[in-house]
Amino acid sequence: MRFTSQRLDDGIRERAFALGDIPGLLWTPETTPAPAPLILLGHPGGLHRMYPRVAARARHAVAEGFAAATIELPGGGDRPRCPTTEQARADLLRAPAAEEPVDEIVDRLVLPLVDQAVPEWRAALDALLSLPEIGGPVGYSGGVIAIGLRLARVEPRIAAALLFAGSFVPRAMFEEARQVTIPLQVLLQWDDEGNDRQMALDLFDAFGSQEKTLHANMGGHTGVPPFEGDAANRFFARHLPRAQPTGRGH
Amino acid sequence: MRFTSQRLDDGIRERAFALGDIPGLLWTPETTPAPAPLILLGHPGGLHRMYPRVAARARHAVAEGFAAATIELPGGGDRPRCPTTEQARADLLRAPAAEEPVDEIVDRLVLPLVDQAVPEWRAALDALLSLPEIGGPVGYSGGVIAIGLRLARVEPRIAAALLFAGSFVPRAMFEEARQVTIPLQVLLQWDDEGNDRQMALDLFDAFGSQEKTLHANMGGHTGVPPFEGDAANRFFARHLPRAQPTGRGH
Repeated sequence: MRFTSQRLDDGIRERAFALGDIPGLLWTPETTPAPAPLILLGHPGGLHRMYPRVAARARHAVAEGFAAATIELPGGGDRPRCPTTEQARADLLRAPAAEEPVDEIVDRLVLPLVDQAVPEWRAALDALLSLPEIGGPVGYSGGVIAIGLRLARVEPRIAAALLFAGSFVPRAMFEEARQVTIPLQVLLQWDDEGNDRQMALDLFDAFGSQEKTLHANMGGHTGVPPFEGDAANRFFARHLPRAQPTGRGH
Repeated sequence: MRFTSQRLDDGIRERAFALGDIPGLLWTPETTPAPAPLILLGHPGGLHRMYPRVAARARHAVAEGFAAATIELPGGGDRPRCPTTEQARADLLRAPAAEEPVDEIVDRLVLPLVDQAVPEWRAALDALLSLPEIGGPVGYSGGVIAIGLRLARVEPRIAAALLFAGSFVPRAMFEEARQVTIPLQVLLQWDDEGNDRQMALDLFDAFGSQEKTLHANMGGHTGVPPFEGDAANRFFARHLPRAQPTGRGH
């Protein structure tokens, strides 16, 4: 991982980095008395386009003492497009008009994305946790929910996840959801145009976690109310305890 | 309203009162620099039996600067039983085994209770708001959800409600729910034995409020996780702003 730029703004350090050819962003408090717990910020791909919303979430988390980081998704932003993914995306857009079933298209779109993205996020985690200012434990926050789901299942360093129920989940991954046991908070936009409400409720039901909370709010995909930022911080504060500052000479 | 006893414990004043022949409880901070916003605490009836849970919710709210109050329900505790309600309650207990439809029994059980209880809560509100240490605005928190629903619809002094989706709601009241417009937070216990999950989701959908949030948690009827106490306080802190302390001589 190499840092490519940084800026300081209002007590928050934002650094752009490259992990091989994957671009990423890291936000930390300007001063870190002890290694900060880390929140990985998920998004639907296209970091430049998503920057305002992702950065706002990051700054909200850093204000509460967390570090926050994200990387570009496979095929997102300036990363090379994958022809089969692009085909699936086009098919999915056409499917409602053609009244075609979408399950098979969702499989073609999401499963390869999850298979490629999850090892990249784990590699980013290796690099980020090697920085002295970041200590863990680690949370995942956001969409793509299928990526968060897979990470929650396979990556033991992730202690809690806040998932946005706002994107398609392949049916095969409902079985994976039963194997997730970490604490979850699931956000559902009740009137999300692009999201099947019943599927989201079924997925929430499927998760194996003993502590899981659904927060359903009114409005469409991008209408998550601001108070959910506070609720997210409180969820992570419960599950990502900060390391105690070590005294000098220890 | 006349106070019948009081005790002070850990900075919180708990007073028992009688409103006519209806017993009630009021919790306030020991000292109130300004009139406190009030939270009415709903419960299923039987204040003595419910005391530990209601008092815990009250103390949690008072610790954040709210006043909290509750009254006994019609037919609850030492109040006279109503024969038709008792009959409906008995019928409801028998209904699952007999595979009888419960809608008509729920109507007989809940509608008269709501019709009798709501004017009593409004009378309690008149009395409580006349105390100098209580200022409003007012929130309603808890079950019986049908009582909270009716209060939210008819009582303009109630500015926000946190409702427990844990008891039966007559179908006729779904139409009333569409007329509720105040901010709502609805708690749903996902595995509540005595509660129909789909009915709770339908009721949440029916409320007319622009700001409404569903918090669904794992576990049965009495298993609401402790962190929902904090979430409740934050919800009410957003919607029940405290009056500014008035300076001397004003």
